[in-house]
Amino acid sequence: MILDIINKKRLGKELSYQELDTIFNGYLNGEVADYQMSALLMAICINGMSDEETFALTKIFIDSGDILDFSDLPGIKVDKHSTGGIGDKTTLVIVPIVAACGGTVVKMSGRGLGYTGGTIDKLESIPGYRIDLTEGEIMKQVYNIGLVVTGQTADLVPMDKVVYALRDVSSTVSSVPLIASSIMSKKIACGADKIIIDIKVGNGALIQTKEEAKKLSELMIRIGEFYNREVRTVISDMNTPLGITVGNSLEVLEAIDVLKGREKNNPFVDLCIELASEMVSMSLEIPVKEAKEKVLQVIEDRSAYHKFEEMVASQKGHLDKIKVSDKTYFIRSPQAGVIKRINALAIGKLVFQLGASKEEMDDKIDFTVGVKLNKLVGDSVKKGEVIATIFYKKKVPEIKIENIYTFE
Amino acid sequence: MILDIINKKRLGKELSYQELDTIFNGYLNGEVADYQMSALLMAICINGMSDEETFALTKIFIDSGDILDFSDLPGIKVDKHSTGGIGDKTTLVIVPIVAACGGTVVKMSGRGLGYTGGTIDKLESIPGYRIDLTEGEIMKQVYNIGLVVTGQTADLVPMDKVVYALRDVSSTVSSVPLIASSIMSKKIACGADKIIIDIKVGNGALIQTKEEAKKLSELMIRIGEFYNREVRTVISDMNTPLGITVGNSLEVLEAIDVLKGREKNNPFVDLCIELASEMVSMSLEIPVKEAKEKVLQVIEDRSAYHKFEEMVASQKGHLDKIKVSDKTYFIRSPQAGVIKRINALAIGKLVFQLGASKEEMDDKIDFTVGVKLNKLVGDSVKKGEVIATIFYKKKVPEIKIENIYTFE
Repeated sequence: MILDIINKKRLGKELSYQELDTIFNGYLNGEVADYQMSALLMAICINGMSDEETFALTKIFIDSGDILDFSDLPGIKVDKHSTGGIGDKTTLVIVPIVAACGGTVVKMSGRGLGYTGGTIDKLESIPGYRIDLTEGEIMKQVYNIGLVVTGQTADLVPMDKVVYALRDVSSTVSSVPLIASSIMSKKIACGADKIIIDIKVGNGALIQTKEEAKKLSELMIRIGEFYNREVRTVISDMNTPLGITVGNSLEVLEAIDVLKGREKNNPFVDLCIELASEMVSMSLEIPVKEAKEKVLQVIEDRSAYHKFEEMVASQKGHLDKIKVSDKTYFIRSPQAGVIKRINALAIGKLVFQLGASKEEMDDKIDFTVGVKLNKLVGDSVKKGEVIATIFYKKKVPEIKIENIYTFE
Repeated sequence: MILDIINKKRLGKELSYQELDTIFNGYLNGEVADYQMSALLMAICINGMSDEETFALTKIFIDSGDILDFSDLPGIKVDKHSTGGIGDKTTLVIVPIVAACGGTVVKMSGRGLGYTGGTIDKLESIPGYRIDLTEGEIMKQVYNIGLVVTGQTADLVPMDKVVYALRDVSSTVSSVPLIASSIMSKKIACGADKIIIDIKVGNGALIQTKEEAKKLSELMIRIGEFYNREVRTVISDMNTPLGITVGNSLEVLEAIDVLKGREKNNPFVDLCIELASEMVSMSLEIPVKEAKEKVLQVIEDRSAYHKFEEMVASQKGHLDKIKVSDKTYFIRSPQAGVIKRINALAIGKLVFQLGASKEEMDDKIDFTVGVKLNKLVGDSVKKGEVIATIFYKKKVPEIKIENIYTFE
């Protein structure tokens, strides 16, 4: 039976809801072996899935765990997801902005693995910050101040966890329908009314090409239609690190600078404003243009930063105690010229070597280390000028500048 | 590294010898997980392999174990392989024929799993028959009488065993390059100078279509050219069971009848004569037409049967002690008409239910049970006429005649 299902997908045929349910729930229950599931996943990666199969798989994923219900909270709950990238701290910036504009945001974030720290890891670099709020505490905080960013309270989509862990070790991650059903099932199980997805494209991201990103975007919108959830997407570049810092404490401090309006005119700030405007538009049901005016206003008048302070205080964090390592090392430009490219993946690997993220779930993170980009893509530099600062704890890893920077 | 190799094949690219070696030997050594190998095998099933990849994989398979050397024995050693089917006892018939014609045959056969008993299982239904000859005993017997059919003496192609076991449980069996490298590596490791392959096509076989069989045939011939081994192939039907019996003792008795010339003009006898003629042609380096005359001659004058008796005696078997169950049940035709089709797979399942083959390696076989087809495809039958006889031990399984027979 299981072998017949795998064989059907091997031959490129469409699986029924019942067949997908049998094999995926069989895997969750331990009746289907790892080697059978990975063979099926590979067949899906190569032969694809129809929309009907993708909708069915999304439902099977959702039904595998708890489903949160925040319908008692006022307002339209808009959730945001990013497909991940090096230096991605957008959640820290846009959640307070949307709340300051009058939106309601219940955001459950995850930890990172590999080269990228997750939002929860970044927030933990704020000493005392609680990421383990109960459902009751979440409800209370959102009633009071309109926003929360915390870890998962419930066992949401456990099937995604086991399937993703297997995909990660069997070269079956890069599949548009598998990525779409994984993301959408989590957002729907989280109780979101509307969803915005930030799809990262580039060498530091899951999705490598624009065409793939477009396919993923369209598919997630169709899944949303099927489940009666408005979905909007933004496709953004991930060849270059996002913003000017990579590393947990450094990224929180950068987010604060953006919220205070101190950072302007860099692609990361532009992306935050774009995403926040879309979320405010969805949340308040107003045009994006009008939403954008509100977004710029709450940055300008500091009410967005105030929301961030309120959230951190409510979750027992002490912003004044954030630490960055005082040991620094400067990367200097080997030549005069204009920076053409900063390799996101290379920066991610470097920060990983510094100890800022985990390889295994049990590893410890050093919140104080990271990299600050003193010069960005498009900047002119002199030979010997400082282009980046490394904040390290034990020692500076071997750095090959030519693997990170391209000049012209 | 391993993930990069799997990913490369996922994208349909060609793997180098070094990459194939890394992942397959890694699997044999336990460094590559089952779920990684099954993902790679699925990618190979769907995206295929080039000739260069197939030649490389064949070499990696051969090098994983012992390689036999029978070059001290006189004559050209021709080996025969069948891709397997219901009621396939060709080895029992053609090896004595080729030896009687003056050829030298060292045949190592395997056991069966699933619906088909292997040649070794069939020979074990001859009480006393030794299937565990040492290499010395094989050499001596072949010097004396020119033929041997025994089990494997050495650890031949251990990689094929572990990979095949995984393919069997992950729906990755049906791949032309994987089948070709599996078969060819075993034949070459067995020390064959020339090889004839009987490719079975149909619902009772590994290969389901003529086109696939043709591809497999051409690929095995190219592998043979690469390894300097002459390869010939015969493509034969496996929609209908082979011969008139299925079951271990019954098939040995049928083989004896064919060797004695008692069975004539049925497709199984024709196939045996065709295969034997090709083998004699290859072994004695004479045209097939001349070889066929010799084959018919050694059946006619009983020297082929005499060779079979010599072999059984030399391996301590007692032909007079073969037992067939005395409990019989007749299948009668539900209608008058002509038999259009006898479903090989259905017959295989029936004989399996009778206890004639193993599901797991530890299961016991009942040599005395099986099915005899009293009427074959093309025969006219009256309503109520006996069309098959079931030899059973405990009880007759439920039989749905309409699943086995088609009339017109």
